[in-house]
Amino acid sequence: MAVWCCIASAANYVSGKMEFEILHTDSNSNGRTGVVRTAHGEFRTPAFMPVGTRGTVKGIVPDLLKQTGSEIILGNTYHLILRPGVDVIEQAGGLHKFTGWDGSILTDSGGFQVFSLAQLRKIDDEGVSFSSHIDGQVIRLEPAEVTRIQNRLGADIIMAFDECPPWPVDFEKAKEAVERTIRWAKICKEVHERDEQWLFGIVQGSLFTELRDICVQELVALDFPGYALGGLSVGESAELRKKIVDEFAPKLPADKPRYLMGVGMPIDIVDSVASGIDMFDCVLPTRNGRNGYAFTSSGPVKLRNEQYKFDFGPIDANCSCYCCRKFSRAYVRHLFLVGEMLGPILLSIHNVSFFQKLMNDIRQSIKENKLSELVEKVHNVWEDRRDC
Amino acid sequence: MAVWCCIASAANYVSGKMEFEILHTDSNSNGRTGVVRTAHGEFRTPAFMPVGTRGTVKGIVPDLLKQTGSEIILGNTYHLILRPGVDVIEQAGGLHKFTGWDGSILTDSGGFQVFSLAQLRKIDDEGVSFSSHIDGQVIRLEPAEVTRIQNRLGADIIMAFDECPPWPVDFEKAKEAVERTIRWAKICKEVHERDEQWLFGIVQGSLFTELRDICVQELVALDFPGYALGGLSVGESAELRKKIVDEFAPKLPADKPRYLMGVGMPIDIVDSVASGIDMFDCVLPTRNGRNGYAFTSSGPVKLRNEQYKFDFGPIDANCSCYCCRKFSRAYVRHLFLVGEMLGPILLSIHNVSFFQKLMNDIRQSIKENKLSELVEKVHNVWEDRRDC
Repeated sequence: MAVWCCIASAANYVSGKMEFEILHTDSNSNGRTGVVRTAHGEFRTPAFMPVGTRGTVKGIVPDLLKQTGSEIILGNTYHLILRPGVDVIEQAGGLHKFTGWDGSILTDSGGFQVFSLAQLRKIDDEGVSFSSHIDGQVIRLEPAEVTRIQNRLGADIIMAFDECPPWPVDFEKAKEAVERTIRWAKICKEVHERDEQWLFGIVQGSLFTELRDICVQELVALDFPGYALGGLSVGESAELRKKIVDEFAPKLPADKPRYLMGVGMPIDIVDSVASGIDMFDCVLPTRNGRNGYAFTSSGPVKLRNEQYKFDFGPIDANCSCYCCRKFSRAYVRHLFLVGEMLGPILLSIHNVSFFQKLMNDIRQSIKENKLSELVEKVHNVWEDRRDC
Repeated sequence: MAVWCCIASAANYVSGKMEFEILHTDSNSNGRTGVVRTAHGEFRTPAFMPVGTRGTVKGIVPDLLKQTGSEIILGNTYHLILRPGVDVIEQAGGLHKFTGWDGSILTDSGGFQVFSLAQLRKIDDEGVSFSSHIDGQVIRLEPAEVTRIQNRLGADIIMAFDECPPWPVDFEKAKEAVERTIRWAKICKEVHERDEQWLFGIVQGSLFTELRDICVQELVALDFPGYALGGLSVGESAELRKKIVDEFAPKLPADKPRYLMGVGMPIDIVDSVASGIDMFDCVLPTRNGRNGYAFTSSGPVKLRNEQYKFDFGPIDANCSCYCCRKFSRAYVRHLFLVGEMLGPILLSIHNVSFFQKLMNDIRQSIKENKLSELVEKVHNVWEDRRDC
């Protein structure tokens, strides 16, 4: 930490009470490694954020989550509004106090969930009305209100309220969504007032590069402290997604954090880092962890398989997580076969640790200008193993 | 620890590689406090054993389980035979290595489960044939084989294979069960050969005191290193159970550990300690923990209730467990309402901690000859609150 203070240069991006420092840029790609400093410590980039939809990364107590190497997690505003409600969290003293996670937190704006989960959705230029997927209750979300809610939830990074169209979507609908996303981003920016929180803009535009170009241009003019690529990982092929990320990550301001929402598999992550992305979130490590699917340094391991019945080695011999230090494949397999909660718990811990070790390897490889070697290695292990 | 070594007296009961030392006896009751030393450390008595039916205390990783104050846990031979099977556990190096729990373990003999869970049960003088409750597979258990299986599982304390009749049962059936239990206990004793394990005898006889008398007499003649009262907590009233425990705990050898199987609520525990019981096991803290029922120093708290929505205090202000140090009633309630795994995890941790704190208070009160005060206090809180 002391070292970082000493080498802090004029290139650091500072806004409000937060700071982004790029420590090294890979000489052979757009990959860069750095650190974001928030009111709740710092997180190193490229960073992977485990998803804590409803105020908990499923099955992992905060202390064990810290041990996975996670420094920032994600919470879903949409879910938290529905249950327990923003009043409860605010009165608890904010999301950190409520959940017991004292590292950094990012909340999304709910835009994605409104468009993927909510029923009877009616969108207009001012916002969205929809029925809760829990009890059908009609809820109205508008950009100003969503920003105020996120101010009250108290995450370190909050997201502008955007319109996230499904995929595929025709040009006209995508254009409308981009126009609303830009209009709403302005409102969010005007309303946002806590200087210990960063508000990020979200670039939409589906796979239409001219729409994404417009969106980038307008949002950059608004001078957000960070930018996300949204509307991806919604059903399009990995190839099409990669083209968008390759083109648009570098178009986002170089001195600010760049966040690729909802991505992804190890290959997607290393490729996107090489394009210049700094932040990721994805449910895969925990969702797959609950289904007996282990991410390992030699590829996927489906622990329910008979072949692991007498396998007393760790899930991943190259992993030093709590699960791999203490338990065998045979034991975790047993837990899954009998339906014991401890199976999902241990495998979620391992999978999150796997992703954090990947991020660590990525950061190290960038420092050594060897990101391309790591990208190749990850492709060799995970190519043709995207389905999970 | 050093103190215990210094005051170790000729009164210590030593058998094989294990030892039971009584440190203090309450001057106003039969309650006593001491320590059992096993190959996996020591556990203080009176001891409460959380139940780890299938090789895990549900939802609690071993490190957090240690933090609850648990020093010995229970595993169910019947369940472990079915899944993953004794071969897997033996090849893993035994139950401790397989499960990652390095404290002491007791395995029951499966007698209780055979009679409560198994289908198509056929009992004869040599053993029991039954269909597995999992897949209908026909399994035969006989006392010699059950002992060998427990030798292979490798717990520190193992139990003789007994016939545990249901309640109510007529005198003739209860008598038959006692006769078989005695005959089988002899076989178990002959077969058992690992001197780092203690084999306990189990006293049956339902509520018929003359049958229990016979059973005690015969089993004591066999000189087991410890004795359990079995066949209780199977549906009889607390009052009837208490009468049996009050009469028969003192009839078991005073220098050896006495174990009351499957009990119970806080009142049952303190009352039984006063009768001279040293060991307990019960699923209540974890089962209730999965259902939103908290044990607290002021009685039960049903966390799903609306009244806790904005209650940001700990589940129990007198508790210093991981859950109470870090999380609020409002948060744990939220987790239960949205169905997040972390709810059962945290509340199981708290409830087990509550039971371990109760045991700690019991041990302390015995040292101070104040057990009767504690018994009264526990009755005041829990009387009329047996249902859960």
